[in-house]
Amino acid sequence: VNDSQLFGALFSRSAVTVDDAAWLQAMLDTEAGLARAAERAGLAPSGSGAAVTSAASVRFFDNGAIGAAAAATGNPVPALVRALIGVLPAEQADAGQAIHLGATSQDIIDTAAMLIARRVLDELLTDLAAAASACADLTREHATTVMAGRTLLQQAVPITFGLVTAGWLTAIDEARQQLHYVRTHRLAIQYGGAAGTMATLRDEGPRVAEYLAGELELALPVLPWHTNRSRILDLAAALTQTCTALGKLARDVTLLAQTEVQELAEGGAPGTGGSSTMPHKQNPVASTLILGNTKQAPNLYATLATAAAEQEHQRAAGSWHAEWLPLTALLNRTTTATTWATTLLQGLQINPVKMRQNLDLTHGLLMAENLATLLTPHLGRLKAHDLIEQASSRATGNNTDLVTALYEDNEASAKLAATPLSRDQLAASLTPTTYLGATQQFIDRALQAHESVDHQLA
Amino acid sequence: VNDSQLFGALFSRSAVTVDDAAWLQAMLDTEAGLARAAERAGLAPSGSGAAVTSAASVRFFDNGAIGAAAAATGNPVPALVRALIGVLPAEQADAGQAIHLGATSQDIIDTAAMLIARRVLDELLTDLAAAASACADLTREHATTVMAGRTLLQQAVPITFGLVTAGWLTAIDEARQQLHYVRTHRLAIQYGGAAGTMATLRDEGPRVAEYLAGELELALPVLPWHTNRSRILDLAAALTQTCTALGKLARDVTLLAQTEVQELAEGGAPGTGGSSTMPHKQNPVASTLILGNTKQAPNLYATLATAAAEQEHQRAAGSWHAEWLPLTALLNRTTTATTWATTLLQGLQINPVKMRQNLDLTHGLLMAENLATLLTPHLGRLKAHDLIEQASSRATGNNTDLVTALYEDNEASAKLAATPLSRDQLAASLTPTTYLGATQQFIDRALQAHESVDHQLA
Amino acid sequence: VNDSQLFGALFSRSAVTVDDAAWLQAMLDTEAGLARAAERAGLAPSGSGAAVTSAASVRFFDNGAIGAAAAATGNPVPALVRALIGVLPAEQADAGQAIHLGATSQDIIDTAAMLIARRVLDELLTDLAAAASACADLTREHATTVMAGRTLLQQAVPITFGLVTAGWLTAIDEARQQLHYVRTHRLAIQYGGAAGTMATLRDEGPRVAEYLAGELELALPVLPWHTNRSRILDLAAALTQTCTALGKLARDVTLLAQTEVQELAEGGAPGTGGSSTMPHKQNPVASTLILGNTKQAPNLYATLATAAAEQEHQRAAGSWHAEWLPLTALLNRTTTATTWATTLLQGLQINPVKMRQNLDLTHGLLMAENLATLLTPHLGRLKAHDLIEQASSRATGNNTDLVTALYEDNEASAKLAATPLSRDQLAASLTPTTYLGATQQFIDRALQAHESVDHQLA
Amino acid sequence: VNDSQLFGALFSRSAVTVDDAAWLQAMLDTEAGLARAAERAGLAPSGSGAAVTSAASVRFFDNGAIGAAAAATGNPVPALVRALIGVLPAEQADAGQAIHLGATSQDIIDTAAMLIARRVLDELLTDLAAAASACADLTREHATTVMAGRTLLQQAVPITFGLVTAGWLTAIDEARQQLHYVRTHRLAIQYGGAAGTMATLRDEGPRVAEYLAGELELALPVLPWHTNRSRILDLAAALTQTCTALGKLARDVTLLAQTEVQELAEGGAPGTGGSSTMPHKQNPVASTLILGNTKQAPNLYATLATAAAEQEHQRAAGSWHAEWLPLTALLNRTTTATTWATTLLQGLQINPVKMRQNLDLTHGLLMAENLATLLTPHLGRLKAHDLIEQASSRATGNNTDLVTALYEDNEASAKLAATPLSRDQLAASLTPTTYLGATQQFIDRALQAHESVDHQLA
Repeated sequence: VNDSQLFGALFSRSAVTVDDAAWLQAMLDTEAGLARAAERAGLAPSGSGAAVTSAASVRFFDNGAIGAAAAATGNPVPALVRALIGVLPAEQADAGQAIHLGATSQDIIDTAAMLIARRVLDELLTDLAAAASACADLTREHATTVMAGRTLLQQAVPITFGLVTAGWLTAIDEARQQLHYVRTHRLAIQYGGAAGTMATLRDEGPRVAEYLAGELELALPVLPWHTNRSRILDLAAALTQTCTALGKLARDVTLLAQTEVQELAEGGAPGTGGSSTMPHKQNPVASTLILGNTKQAPNLYATLATAAAEQEHQRAAGSWHAEWLPLTALLNRTTTATTWATTLLQGLQINPVKMRQNLDLTHGLLMAENLATLLTPHLGRLKAHDLIEQASSRATGNNTDLVTALYEDNEASAKLAATPLSRDQLAASLTPTTYLGATQQFIDRALQAHESVDHQLA
Repeated sequence: VNDSQLFGALFSRSAVTVDDAAWLQAMLDTEAGLARAAERAGLAPSGSGAAVTSAASVRFFDNGAIGAAAAATGNPVPALVRALIGVLPAEQADAGQAIHLGATSQDIIDTAAMLIARRVLDELLTDLAAAASACADLTREHATTVMAGRTLLQQAVPITFGLVTAGWLTAIDEARQQLHYVRTHRLAIQYGGAAGTMATLRDEGPRVAEYLAGELELALPVLPWHTNRSRILDLAAALTQTCTALGKLARDVTLLAQTEVQELAEGGAPGTGGSSTMPHKQNPVASTLILGNTKQAPNLYATLATAAAEQEHQRAAGSWHAEWLPLTALLNRTTTATTWATTLLQGLQINPVKMRQNLDLTHGLLMAENLATLLTPHLGRLKAHDLIEQASSRATGNNTDLVTALYEDNEASAKLAATPLSRDQLAASLTPTTYLGATQQFIDRALQAHESVDHQLA
Repeated sequence: VNDSQLFGALFSRSAVTVDDAAWLQAMLDTEAGLARAAERAGLAPSGSGAAVTSAASVRFFDNGAIGAAAAATGNPVPALVRALIGVLPAEQADAGQAIHLGATSQDIIDTAAMLIARRVLDELLTDLAAAASACADLTREHATTVMAGRTLLQQAVPITFGLVTAGWLTAIDEARQQLHYVRTHRLAIQYGGAAGTMATLRDEGPRVAEYLAGELELALPVLPWHTNRSRILDLAAALTQTCTALGKLARDVTLLAQTEVQELAEGGAPGTGGSSTMPHKQNPVASTLILGNTKQAPNLYATLATAAAEQEHQRAAGSWHAEWLPLTALLNRTTTATTWATTLLQGLQINPVKMRQNLDLTHGLLMAENLATLLTPHLGRLKAHDLIEQASSRATGNNTDLVTALYEDNEASAKLAATPLSRDQLAASLTPTTYLGATQQFIDRALQAHESVDHQLA
Repeated sequence: VNDSQLFGALFSRSAVTVDDAAWLQAMLDTEAGLARAAERAGLAPSGSGAAVTSAASVRFFDNGAIGAAAAATGNPVPALVRALIGVLPAEQADAGQAIHLGATSQDIIDTAAMLIARRVLDELLTDLAAAASACADLTREHATTVMAGRTLLQQAVPITFGLVTAGWLTAIDEARQQLHYVRTHRLAIQYGGAAGTMATLRDEGPRVAEYLAGELELALPVLPWHTNRSRILDLAAALTQTCTALGKLARDVTLLAQTEVQELAEGGAPGTGGSSTMPHKQNPVASTLILGNTKQAPNLYATLATAAAEQEHQRAAGSWHAEWLPLTALLNRTTTATTWATTLLQGLQINPVKMRQNLDLTHGLLMAENLATLLTPHLGRLKAHDLIEQASSRATGNNTDLVTALYEDNEASAKLAATPLSRDQLAASLTPTTYLGATQQFIDRALQAHESVDHQLA
């Protein structure tokens, strides 16, 4: 699992990192919960639960030794179980009966994965709430900050920066809802024994399972899910969705921060984004690393889904094992992207002057659609379109504005004279702020939806 | 899109296939819905909605001509719009004002994708209900049909075939719930105009959008989602989940139908699965083709998720276009896998005799865990385990049963004599039917959950 | 297989499209080659080869009927064989003995795939040679056209546009070499019979195989490769590599064509890239569609590789079937991206004036590294870096050039006075053309390498 | 990077593991090579190369500190460079001029990746040679060990186990050739400076590059490949190919080791594959973990290819960073799968008796094709096929052999009497060893090809 010190600050940056210690503790927590459940079911001596729970702390265990022993059995659980029994004080040795009771290795690892997922989801939900809140602030603040809307990387028609951030906000809020759904509905214990029948417990299995779910505060599934990996996939889909939302946002920032655009800049602490050789440079480090993390998500999901579809019989040979590293990676990449996004959003520098300058780069060409709309009732759609298309071409060539270019043409000039429209009215149609359509309504709607998500997830 | 006649029976087999005609009609339905919405909003002449709706039928259009024109603009909508205007009867020419009103090409294609998704989801939900029902029948019928549970492709402990099908059932039911959620909550119109502001409609946009959603019976989104592809990903995740459930089921069938296992056989019509050169052969065609379809799903999702994260600004250059074929493929692969699964499940032949024979292949070794459980209180866990491990090895070597092998050893024999356990009691512990644990409880639970899903989706 | 008329101009645009007809003809060509080989081996009546070859033309066959029959056997070959026998004139009926002799369905489909791959590779190699040639022309023409080099989407130091196109050229040339290698070394017949032993031919199999390879001009493999899919993967990797090279190129074009950058524009026929509602717009249609195609490649490869690793025993249940559509899609996406790229490169409009203007946007900040190099021997690396960093900040704030900003500071001014460097020398260091390093050497090397690739592939 | 102690024995098991230390040392080796090159080019004081080389050892550096500093710049190189300068003894401080001369961070990380790849490829080539050799031994030993050939998981016609291992051998040998090609042709230095022009070195860059390539024994590329990732993809494709070959082999082993098949067993050390609760169990641990590793490869490739296609301009924002972890993972998964495969192959237990028993399971049905071939000249293809098909069905129903079943039918019996064929001849046609076709020829060919690969790679 990812413990890298060298790359950790870039790819495993969250307060909650899934590493060896996290896995080991989660497996121990599962065994401890099982011991308490066993005692409660009367299948282990009184005091077993507490004894095992006391023993089940990573600080008593040697990851290296357990890991080394894993090769013989194909997973670390048997060695962990032996070590856990060994940690019990002599006077509590009979608590050993409660350890791993009725369980198979997969029960422990799968349940541990769910405990880990819960910690990660809690952290993600907190961090994404902060990110969403930062987006909402930007949205309110820049609801009327006009800039060029861009399609296929070309300026199209005006929008406001608040509409951009409203889009980011909505995507993050959708991710939050999906993560919250997985957090509250899809995290369940795994407890089925060797082949999903809990046969060693005779007919006591379901009762122990119920207690185990209660102890760990996870859901009780309809069936053991050893070879039905839908819970893993739902988790992975929600994480991928989160990465997608953040990746789009980071992509927008890198584009808007280009030297030739300069509408946004990453704030960052002094020194951040600097270059040792190019003193003038200010690299968009946070968005770069959001992308560096999020780009890994879709194929991590695909590995998990491929493995999920190949789970033979009651427990799989390989497809289950193929899950652990990609799932760990997906959890760490998502929390890290979120951490970077929070940093990015909280320090983002907006340059409304540059936004306006860029909007004016084309001397009103961006408003051609508006001008066409104005002329259509008087000239017909086709004629209006043609005249403006020709004028656009002249405006670009002569570096003048669109209305000037229109009047430079004799035919156009004559046609316009025959309409009730004044040149001032035409010139006014080139003002971007008059052509924002439903922008404000959309912004209001997005903010309202955000409040309702905040309320729902509170 | 996929129209293959040569491979269609294998990969595009559902009653609802997403092909050129489906896409074209869905785009026309979107334009027709928009025309009705425009009329209702007072932005188009009375009668426009009906006129455009009448004209908007695939039979009036030439896919080839529209497709050829698509290269100039990068998508087929502009050509479709021109053709649709051309189809209007002369006396209804002014209904042309209602066509494409305020829309951009992406509005039409995205909304069409949602209409297509709805048709596919409806078909899928119907077909999967039948598949689930067939699983439920098998589960009830074979609740007590004992067979070997298998882990890592080795026999482990006994289960029943009803428990296997209960697992399939639960996975299918989960997929149904997810598809149903997408069907009811995530299919929305796309309507934003050039850059998502609906600027050509001034402040009328949201009202037209509301009417359009009503006309098409799709949800009204908070914002246009031109570059927020979460709806596409939710759909794709649900389809991938469905493929995963079916793939696992098909994998189980191919394994249980092996010549050396023969616990299951595909029914199939006479001639199905035959080989021209090998007269004895009965290939598992349906499961093979379920796998042939479902194995394509995870990476189709990954393509969509990768594209979703790269949607620049207000509308993307390429990442949007990269969605159409994978989405179409994923829809067709999922419906086709479902169609094959329904065929498979309805004709599945179960061989309980063979199941029992296979269970006895190891002369009770499969019950070693049970025997160990019986001996542990008398011999201690470690000693019980060791004696049985040695006896297992002898039983395999001598081809005898486990209890016989146990008594062949002097030490074991002496130890056992000192316990209150009779040889008959030990022999009885090798009976698989006594060692099914919670199997029946799990089956009951899965059937109950199934009824509740049926009720919920009704 | 993809036959779409509606989307075909966008995604299946090459002169060589892999569709139903291509597959059917390739399967027929394989059967015809096999008939000729059988006759040559003395295993079929004289004249069989010619008779089957005459009959083996798509125009005699009904894709729909063959396709419909495919469902019973899981692939279209058995129905094709029956139909092919049926097409033989009565007087040549005994040529039927030569049809499908010793073959299994997979032999026919796999060999057909190789024949299809050859046609596609030939077309690709021709088209990519044209694309490379266009890149080489641009490289020669713009070897000294100075522009900003950009890293992390920020201007970094000067380069020339010829260096950019030299990079595109090198990548395309590498793809050509890889495709050529696959074309000449990795395309082989598949011929193994039911389980790869060619048992029905006793010991004649290898001789027939040798003749078959000769007839089809494909390599003779060491073994039948029914479950060793390395040839498919090598093909897929070369196609993915090609898509990668073209995707990078298209990404650069979309970025350099941005409204705020305008260093490049797509030429395109009149009307191409236009927008019905926005008369001023010129969308980069070709690069958008290159991206729309190439973004699908990596996960098509992943599906093929995943399937390749799951080929059970002698012939697989599902993993083989899962290959056909992704391979077809990958072939069509790659040829189409190449077609678009050729269009793009041949019409590409370069704007050297704008390149120079953009380079001057930062008033020499881009040359900070050069200035630092000049000052370092006199001031020490650290002091030089610090003074320039501060001056950069002032230059940006005051909108002046870097040297002016440097002299505005008293400390810097004093330090500089103590050096032998004149202000003119410093100012000269801000001239981009003096700071191109090895650009020309690299360009020469890339052009030389290109000539050698042309020569090698000729 | 993956340092897991807990899961390392399963997923990072090779003698050469790519971890933090490997990355750090490879970066230091790159800087040291560059210092030597700089000195050689006369751009750094005499002795610089040796001084930096002495300092460039991981034991002098603190991964944690360097990693923590990486967040500010987006990669660990700037901090590493500072630390490396700091490690120089005071009297060699001016060797610092040689450190990082003309380089950008990406030069160091990319070159380090190539150095790491070389170490991994060397180890892989050694380990795969051993695996191939084990396959060749099995092939020779079991050239005539008859077993059932299986297609679509059904018994088809006889083969030998030597043919199976010849298939594994050929696939491994192909992977070796591909890895060797990458090892010898595709590993190159990266050295381009900020934007690929090596501008800080004026026209000296290419000379330093040449020396650097010499020092590190890597190829000199035509151009810096900052945004042309074909070398990474070629490496990744070769690794994926290797995983594919091993995955197929492991899949075969898991299937042939099934309790109901038992033709193969993993040897393993005592205790390997055991189960704590099921004393009889012998899990195929090595094949399970081969699969657990190899199943991750295809989508790691896809992530790398997706990133490769999105490399903007001269150096990318995110797509480059997205490579490091997947590449590291792919290297470790491939070496680990190879390590497991070597273990597996060297301990593999073959059970020829069971192979023969399974072949006889169907009482000769497997030989139906052979019987049909014998009868066809006398009865016609159609009649022969029909009679055998019916007899097959009776044979299965009555549990008798195919010839017996044939004679039980009056029509068949009469037809056969009219032929010159005796019942003994017919019975003899059911002997599997007579129906192996080109098996031996193929085995000879595969062994010959293997020798030639060994020779080529020696």
